[in-house]
Amino acid sequence: MTGAEFDSRAGYRMQRRENFDDRMVSGSSASGEPKPRHPAPSPQALHRLDKLLGSGQVLIPGRDEMTRYETDVLGRRHPACWVARPRDVDDVRSVVRWAYAERAELVVQGANTGPVLAGVPRRGGHQGVVSMELCRSTIDVDVVNRTVTVSAGVDLETLNEVLGRDSLTFPIDLGANPSVGGMVGANTGGARLIRHGDVRRHVLGLEVVLPDEHATVLSLLSGLRKDNRGPDLKQLFIASSGTLGIVTAAVFGVDPVPLQVAVALVAATDGEDVLRLLTFLEARATERLSAFEMLSRPTLEAIARHRPDRMPLPLAQGRRLPELLVLVELNDSDIATGGHQGLDEELAAILDHGSAEGWVDDAWFGPPATLWALRNAAIDALRQEGPMVAFDLSAPRSRLFEVRERVMTLVGQIAPHARYADFGHVGDGGLHSIVIWPDDMEAGRRDKERDQLRTAVYELVTAAGGTFSAEHGVGPENESAFRRHTPPEVRGLHAGLKSLFDPQGILGATDLS
Amino acid sequence: MTGAEFDSRAGYRMQRRENFDDRMVSGSSASGEPKPRHPAPSPQALHRLDKLLGSGQVLIPGRDEMTRYETDVLGRRHPACWVARPRDVDDVRSVVRWAYAERAELVVQGANTGPVLAGVPRRGGHQGVVSMELCRSTIDVDVVNRTVTVSAGVDLETLNEVLGRDSLTFPIDLGANPSVGGMVGANTGGARLIRHGDVRRHVLGLEVVLPDEHATVLSLLSGLRKDNRGPDLKQLFIASSGTLGIVTAAVFGVDPVPLQVAVALVAATDGEDVLRLLTFLEARATERLSAFEMLSRPTLEAIARHRPDRMPLPLAQGRRLPELLVLVELNDSDIATGGHQGLDEELAAILDHGSAEGWVDDAWFGPPATLWALRNAAIDALRQEGPMVAFDLSAPRSRLFEVRERVMTLVGQIAPHARYADFGHVGDGGLHSIVIWPDDMEAGRRDKERDQLRTAVYELVTAAGGTFSAEHGVGPENESAFRRHTPPEVRGLHAGLKSLFDPQGILGATDLS
Repeated sequence: MTGAEFDSRAGYRMQRRENFDDRMVSGSSASGEPKPRHPAPSPQALHRLDKLLGSGQVLIPGRDEMTRYETDVLGRRHPACWVARPRDVDDVRSVVRWAYAERAELVVQGANTGPVLAGVPRRGGHQGVVSMELCRSTIDVDVVNRTVTVSAGVDLETLNEVLGRDSLTFPIDLGANPSVGGMVGANTGGARLIRHGDVRRHVLGLEVVLPDEHATVLSLLSGLRKDNRGPDLKQLFIASSGTLGIVTAAVFGVDPVPLQVAVALVAATDGEDVLRLLTFLEARATERLSAFEMLSRPTLEAIARHRPDRMPLPLAQGRRLPELLVLVELNDSDIATGGHQGLDEELAAILDHGSAEGWVDDAWFGPPATLWALRNAAIDALRQEGPMVAFDLSAPRSRLFEVRERVMTLVGQIAPHARYADFGHVGDGGLHSIVIWPDDMEAGRRDKERDQLRTAVYELVTAAGGTFSAEHGVGPENESAFRRHTPPEVRGLHAGLKSLFDPQGILGATDLS
Repeated sequence: MTGAEFDSRAGYRMQRRENFDDRMVSGSSASGEPKPRHPAPSPQALHRLDKLLGSGQVLIPGRDEMTRYETDVLGRRHPACWVARPRDVDDVRSVVRWAYAERAELVVQGANTGPVLAGVPRRGGHQGVVSMELCRSTIDVDVVNRTVTVSAGVDLETLNEVLGRDSLTFPIDLGANPSVGGMVGANTGGARLIRHGDVRRHVLGLEVVLPDEHATVLSLLSGLRKDNRGPDLKQLFIASSGTLGIVTAAVFGVDPVPLQVAVALVAATDGEDVLRLLTFLEARATERLSAFEMLSRPTLEAIARHRPDRMPLPLAQGRRLPELLVLVELNDSDIATGGHQGLDEELAAILDHGSAEGWVDDAWFGPPATLWALRNAAIDALRQEGPMVAFDLSAPRSRLFEVRERVMTLVGQIAPHARYADFGHVGDGGLHSIVIWPDDMEAGRRDKERDQLRTAVYELVTAAGGTFSAEHGVGPENESAFRRHTPPEVRGLHAGLKSLFDPQGILGATDLS
């Protein structure tokens, strides 16, 4: 979507600088900006808000502390006309009742780590921010039920620190450190999705404040794995970009911490061999397969140029880099009770088989941290190659390499002076396709090529049964793509849901109608 | 819920006889029956329907073939005023457009294996049946993507037969043989949920015909594991008991067939020990733990009395039966590539540890088929003990045995002459609590006790964070419990969703508003 690549482990926090693509997106976003649904609240209304919550919980323009609530992870600043920092559900309800009465638009913000502008105000300065950062009272672990009840403002690292005391983990593996509410709103995936699934798989319960007259609290905080009492309303708030309700707490099913891990890098010649490796691994290692990440040769070359320290020795010793390199990880419980020989042996046996069959060219084992360091160097290394655009694609795995070929062809046709590189969570059908222009290319031409390329790539991937937003969710950043590639009957239902849950249209930065 | 216990593997088809509870339910259902939303269609309207589809695809009253569409798996017959058997999506749309124009109410029926009356007409004879049994054109396996696109009328056994050719499986493990559409409508669970999850976890895509003027087709047939383009509409049709749209096809993520299995029976003294065994197994065997089923002593005694052939030798040799017996199963891929020693050894090591720690009293290994035969004899054996009512409960696992104790106390208070027995998918927090009255007890008193018990048990389990419908879904059978135990704000949203998707209220036997 943008230069903002939600890279596993590398994270955003090291990438807070203006870049080529951010500038482009800001430009295009400004031109297509719809009118506000409601004007900014009056000074009198803001005064009433200020009196509702305790001291210091409401900020209004002119105060420096507002900046961080207005600025997204990529440094893009969208002014807010107010910021409220509720401490609990009652505070959230007070703010919502006020907003409903005043018809004041609001955007819920968690840890503000998302790349699609869904957590900062829309341009125009008419929206306020409800920051959930103070809603952190509860992290209640139920070891026997393997669940945790957690406030929306708690961040992933804190949650996992507490769970770790009971050898449990919320297995969403990211470089960023989002809040619970933000992960629900984006249905976060991450690098271990192939084993552990997305956030949706773990949500057993939600508590949500609705943006209606009464600020109704939907208490759907079940910790049940089997519960079939009609359609499951909580599903609607997952991946809804904070447009239907304000998540204030969640019950997550959590997993035992894996205590063994084996990682290898595998060189392959082409997509067909990569997919053979994948299907064989899944059949033999089943759920132990915990990551399957691919890097292509142009990406490896960029890492070799800009981050040679991240190149593991076997790849650094002057030999030609492989066309495709796959990082494979298996994980499992420990072996204290016997039962298993080591995972390294299991992985070695699988790769030996692949080697004998001809679909593994070469393979290297190494310390997990070293091999992941290579994978996680990808986005930063590519950024240093020149002005770029990064796509967040996914497709059925059986069509992924066909999509990849066709994207490469398009790049050759539309942007003949640009280079193509890619990497991604191939095990989940994910691919981050990166297009890099020469530094000295005239900006106007670059912009034109980029716009053409976007339109063509989105068309192509959608036609192949794929998606233009695999992991990042929908926000103002990509809502025009949402409109173009979502059939009208589906958009009509989204609009109907929006009216049902948010009758005055006061909630969220994203317009999904 | 009813005498209808959706027992893993035992299935319904062997249980098609009137029983105590069925008679009771029919009685209570008739008395609380709401008025039809719309009257039955006129003869002229039925004539128009008949002309819409090809010959033999529409049945009207008077034809013997109608009976099976009107009769549920427990033999309860609710007359239909028409039956349509569409062959494909176009036929489904024709029927829906007709129904919308005529305001004719309709119930979608799959393989008709559900126990809550959601797939047969409501009482009153004003509803028609749309049987999906002829919609079976597609079973399209994508081995590399590990997905299958399948028509709604295909049954589970056929689906797994086709998947098995590629060593894949749709891992919903039931005694019954439901259709794809029925499994989506009920969000079926089954005996392997602890490892493989429910139907929802596997639904990657749906195609749905909406009951609106145009019989709109929602084509959400994605096969993507990562796709975050806004709220996920298809979730609404899962577990909706066929009230929001007609599912015509699904894309399921599927799993490799497990090729190793180890099963043991474990004797435990009390709930605390059972839960220690469960948490230890989950930590050590992780996803290899594929079943954790409990039977209590009264259940074992009933099996010993009525199905002594199902008692494995160690339990049959005259010793006192354990208070609680757990069937534990591990499964895994094969070991052709090395990597693992046998699962039997792994399970034995875990049970040895439990024995040393004092929370495993005794354990026996045996052929999986033999040990499962014991588990699957439970419901039939208990039925032979006398008139009964069976509850389909689940609770957070940490509170399950507390709930169990309190249900037993209630039975002692409310029905002092009745006996209590139970069994269930304890690994998922599920428990089937069975109450059996003496054969010679006066029916009126029995009925009164049963009604009191139902009210009290539903209150109790709901207050403890549990559910009155763990696996069976909601239908006319239990919609009064739904109304009583669903907060008004949640029911209000259900009603809003119903209006959005089904503006004339023509679809489904179940009233969730």
